[in-house]
Amino acid sequence: MIKVGVVGSTGYTGVELVRLLSRHPKVSLKLITSRSFSGKKIADIYPNLQGIVDLECEELDFTEIADRVEVVFTALPHGVSMSVVPKLLQVGVKVIDLSGDYRYQDQELYEEWYTESHQSPDLLSEAVYGLPELNREVIKESRLIANPGCYPTSAILALTPVVNKGLIDLNSIIIDSKSGATGAGRTPSRATHFCEVSENFKAYKVAQHRHTSEIENGVKMVANKEVVLSFTPHLVPMKRGILSTVYTQLKQNFTTKELRELYQDFYSSHPFVRIHKVGKLPETKYVVNSNYCDIGLKVDSRTNRLVIVSTIDNLIKGSSGQAIQNFNLLSGLSETTGLKFSGIFP
Amino acid sequence: MIKVGVVGSTGYTGVELVRLLSRHPKVSLKLITSRSFSGKKIADIYPNLQGIVDLECEELDFTEIADRVEVVFTALPHGVSMSVVPKLLQVGVKVIDLSGDYRYQDQELYEEWYTESHQSPDLLSEAVYGLPELNREVIKESRLIANPGCYPTSAILALTPVVNKGLIDLNSIIIDSKSGATGAGRTPSRATHFCEVSENFKAYKVAQHRHTSEIENGVKMVANKEVVLSFTPHLVPMKRGILSTVYTQLKQNFTTKELRELYQDFYSSHPFVRIHKVGKLPETKYVVNSNYCDIGLKVDSRTNRLVIVSTIDNLIKGSSGQAIQNFNLLSGLSETTGLKFSGIFP
Amino acid sequence: MIKVGVVGSTGYTGVELVRLLSRHPKVSLKLITSRSFSGKKIADIYPNLQGIVDLECEELDFTEIADRVEVVFTALPHGVSMSVVPKLLQVGVKVIDLSGDYRYQDQELYEEWYTESHQSPDLLSEAVYGLPELNREVIKESRLIANPGCYPTSAILALTPVVNKGLIDLNSIIIDSKSGATGAGRTPSRATHFCEVSENFKAYKVAQHRHTSEIENGVKMVANKEVVLSFTPHLVPMKRGILSTVYTQLKQNFTTKELRELYQDFYSSHPFVRIHKVGKLPETKYVVNSNYCDIGLKVDSRTNRLVIVSTIDNLIKGSSGQAIQNFNLLSGLSETTGLKFSGIFP
Amino acid sequence: MIKVGVVGSTGYTGVELVRLLSRHPKVSLKLITSRSFSGKKIADIYPNLQGIVDLECEELDFTEIADRVEVVFTALPHGVSMSVVPKLLQVGVKVIDLSGDYRYQDQELYEEWYTESHQSPDLLSEAVYGLPELNREVIKESRLIANPGCYPTSAILALTPVVNKGLIDLNSIIIDSKSGATGAGRTPSRATHFCEVSENFKAYKVAQHRHTSEIENGVKMVANKEVVLSFTPHLVPMKRGILSTVYTQLKQNFTTKELRELYQDFYSSHPFVRIHKVGKLPETKYVVNSNYCDIGLKVDSRTNRLVIVSTIDNLIKGSSGQAIQNFNLLSGLSETTGLKFSGIFP
Repeated sequence: MIKVGVVGSTGYTGVELVRLLSRHPKVSLKLITSRSFSGKKIADIYPNLQGIVDLECEELDFTEIADRVEVVFTALPHGVSMSVVPKLLQVGVKVIDLSGDYRYQDQELYEEWYTESHQSPDLLSEAVYGLPELNREVIKESRLIANPGCYPTSAILALTPVVNKGLIDLNSIIIDSKSGATGAGRTPSRATHFCEVSENFKAYKVAQHRHTSEIENGVKMVANKEVVLSFTPHLVPMKRGILSTVYTQLKQNFTTKELRELYQDFYSSHPFVRIHKVGKLPETKYVVNSNYCDIGLKVDSRTNRLVIVSTIDNLIKGSSGQAIQNFNLLSGLSETTGLKFSGIFP
Repeated sequence: MIKVGVVGSTGYTGVELVRLLSRHPKVSLKLITSRSFSGKKIADIYPNLQGIVDLECEELDFTEIADRVEVVFTALPHGVSMSVVPKLLQVGVKVIDLSGDYRYQDQELYEEWYTESHQSPDLLSEAVYGLPELNREVIKESRLIANPGCYPTSAILALTPVVNKGLIDLNSIIIDSKSGATGAGRTPSRATHFCEVSENFKAYKVAQHRHTSEIENGVKMVANKEVVLSFTPHLVPMKRGILSTVYTQLKQNFTTKELRELYQDFYSSHPFVRIHKVGKLPETKYVVNSNYCDIGLKVDSRTNRLVIVSTIDNLIKGSSGQAIQNFNLLSGLSETTGLKFSGIFP
Repeated sequence: MIKVGVVGSTGYTGVELVRLLSRHPKVSLKLITSRSFSGKKIADIYPNLQGIVDLECEELDFTEIADRVEVVFTALPHGVSMSVVPKLLQVGVKVIDLSGDYRYQDQELYEEWYTESHQSPDLLSEAVYGLPELNREVIKESRLIANPGCYPTSAILALTPVVNKGLIDLNSIIIDSKSGATGAGRTPSRATHFCEVSENFKAYKVAQHRHTSEIENGVKMVANKEVVLSFTPHLVPMKRGILSTVYTQLKQNFTTKELRELYQDFYSSHPFVRIHKVGKLPETKYVVNSNYCDIGLKVDSRTNRLVIVSTIDNLIKGSSGQAIQNFNLLSGLSETTGLKFSGIFP
Repeated sequence: MIKVGVVGSTGYTGVELVRLLSRHPKVSLKLITSRSFSGKKIADIYPNLQGIVDLECEELDFTEIADRVEVVFTALPHGVSMSVVPKLLQVGVKVIDLSGDYRYQDQELYEEWYTESHQSPDLLSEAVYGLPELNREVIKESRLIANPGCYPTSAILALTPVVNKGLIDLNSIIIDSKSGATGAGRTPSRATHFCEVSENFKAYKVAQHRHTSEIENGVKMVANKEVVLSFTPHLVPMKRGILSTVYTQLKQNFTTKELRELYQDFYSSHPFVRIHKVGKLPETKYVVNSNYCDIGLKVDSRTNRLVIVSTIDNLIKGSSGQAIQNFNLLSGLSETTGLKFSGIFP
């Protein structure tokens, strides 16, 4: 059993880590921390865990942490993570960081989009972008994983096969994404008030969302050249799930069937990407509560555009599940350990 | 008082007509028909109308209809409308048709997208496409109005000012639309089952939806040339509201402020289009239960794309409200009569 | 036109007053106040009102208020209302208060359930409990109306006919109520976060909710004796609407039909109470966005209990609509002025 | 591994069985049947199962079924079950039946409430009512389990401790239950249309629902005398979850703390019943997606009523999870095998 801890365990991604790790067959969850709830049992904050998880939230204490755990998941806000992660590495634990703080190699890019100085830029070159479908082998050898953002996971997995093969005009990429409200976290605000979200649909941060740069960075890893693209996030009146509709201009003619085969081949060794059949498209209810990313394709022959539809559970494949997928790789376990469960529908 | 009737009064657009017409100060609603519920009171089918509307659904009977009403709204499925509308015109009533049957001048275009032969193609050249913001003056003189579809209303109003001024590359248009479930009508199906829609998000009919051609047709009216564009509808787990996110490539550089002023000017004489301030974007809850179309703009200087966000209530500005707006014009009334109410938020 | 003002105009009941008053044919809305948003246009806070209401929120100023308005609606939190209402009366405006501060004649009762000292107890005997179906005539003569709470409106209207006729055991009353989330107001909190409310159902404040005492007080007005009853509120994942299921023990045998006739007669002169036919029960979608209270009945012959189902829109008949109904009576207008619109379904 | 089959695998309870059985560590799911979808893969009907369950739906065939499976779960409509179950027993497989057909020992009672003749009344005395918290030992020895209904599970578990100890007046029981829409099954109808359920709340079948008799039957098992009670079901705009608010008159005075201890003791050996602390009440989100029944208590000292709040996931503890709990007992496994997972919140 590998001993692990979760730092920042009472937000939505934190508690999802706790829930998933508590049933992981190779993990012993030894430590959970929380600033706001320290001293309280997690099962008193999230009563669904009553009888399942008997841990109490603690203050984070670096002095003895290396004796208690081997790997730590940090589920902290960006900006906070970078003040914690270096200390964890220093005392010798491996870190899987769920914030945006280590997702770029380029310090300037980070500071431009996060409008904040980076506190530990020296770690940027070491950190590995933890998208297993791109970086599986490097992840295995790393001690610091930058777990991808939710929107970037859905968008980069949608684009990778056609970008990798050079089939699309890189200037044509438009990503129209829609997310459930858990993506905004648990802190109360007018924007997440039930009566403002229910029976409502909106776009937000158009042409300004940070994940634009993270998606561009991911696509650049695949394309080996700079990419500038459009990304628009929207808020859907539901709790979980992201669906990205991705528009790209094909350089030559293809049928949906041909591209579907390309995707099927490309992801054949990746257990958490499922490609839908020609004529079928994924819906969020197929993946919610699972670690799957479902992808469907449609060539629009009138415009020669390829439309890619990609769905994930933002808290699982888009966050805590993917973190565990990275943990499995890092720990020499099978990639699917503790993650081989289906979504819940209905 | 102008005497009117609603043919097909028990579907969602039909009953919305009944509800709105019953409080229209210049209308006397004399006749409502329904095949499935003939002989039943509308207030027994929709108990919200108890004490407000005391009409009974009748079978449609052409013999005496011209004695009872001057204008008829036909809220029938496409294919059915075209078997009814010619008879109504023949007996001398004016018709506002909410189906897709008379929205194209080009019979072939209709038959291609609706995969059905047209039964009264001779009326196509006479019918006026009832988007008042495009065709206000012609509508006033018409006896047959083809009321626009819901998605096309949101998309065409979003695009018209920049298309009219020739500011965008017409080959670059991508319309990513999201609709509430009333758009699918009242007939029960697995696709509209609560447990399949709630907490779910999906795209459907990608690159195949009929409204693609209707939007192209509308943009063509403005551009005076053929347009081919991409349109993707999505289903949002809410009842009412459409939000369209429209992507276009600008031919030259503009600020958001400049284009916002252009839109403001363009729609200054159109009481139901509201342009949001720079930095603000519309949400469906601003327009739901109203006849407004709200539009917001954002220039993405990195890609030189203009992103237009446009929202309507699909049952009002996207259908029954717009039909009444057309009726007002047709009847020589002020365009806003009976429609000057705000949305409901929360 | 009667000049009116709304004090506390940016909460959910405040803005509902603004929305409804703005289309009231006999009202000129002259003044809206807000502490948090003073200086801002209401249409910038609630963009649904753009083009409909052009007022700016002001700080409350007692010096000139009597010159500007004749009647003020106070939509303030309890405890705050009682510091404002006396000053308004003093300068000579009539007040319709939407808080709980003036709903009891008995100061002790207020202080017990609201755990707060009353600041203007002398006004308690003058204030009229503004349930028009009970107190229509007194309301007409009053200068201070205590507008009822939402749950009490649904419960008291459900019970009044059988209590009035002495048909039920007063010790047997159990009221199981369910409310949408607008009832909790607009202030963000964990309890109203979308992800905590959506797809969830809960009871709260069991045997402790303040409205218990208000309901008892209302039933006592009808019964002319003290009543102790059970009341349990629940939170429904929807925005608007209250449905109360009321259980009572009948003293003798009745059929549903007999009691339905009793209710029909009792409310025959009350335009906003609708009694459903035998075999039919109201749903919240029949009344949402209207000022109606719909009531359905079912005698359970096995237990000789009468089950009463009562529904309202908590923001309209349960709050702002009823306040306007009171305003109409107070102002010598027809009770239904500005309120004769149907609910919205779907 | 125990070989099992699911008859009627494509309804909501059927597919929930498939999902849960596919991850049960001691089960080999060999056979799934469906009339409507025979020949189709279950993962094509429920794409969430893609990569998890690779079975194809078959027509039910009794000739070889005993060679393929040892235990069959029948997830069929009532009336249909009783034509299938006898044949399954005859060929030697054990049956866990999820319909209402074998839940009563008394044939007349069944026929009265289900208004249908029973086709295999001889099996009624043999069938065991599969509520493990009542009948654990008998279940272990049975070959035919009548799995309880969803509402009865929540209500009987709420009442059992106080009924067992004789602390309440049995004539005072009122059960006000609220359920998500999965309880209505997957067949499309107007009553389950998204636009009729969302943002709506209603009571249905007041004083007439079949589960009234099943609850009375269950309480009678505990009380050893006839019980007549009131039961009202309601539909909540959510997918899963039941919350029952149960009102009872206490015969003498108790504190909430005393009764909480009684419940805690009573269920101490029952792993799936959790009793909340004094001052806390369960919400459906604590149990949804789990096999737990959460119970909270509140004594109302003013009326000397005990209010019990009880919540389950209607598809798990209220149906398919409980069926597996019964299967575990029947098969000599630990009661919690394959069921020890927490709910999902958010």
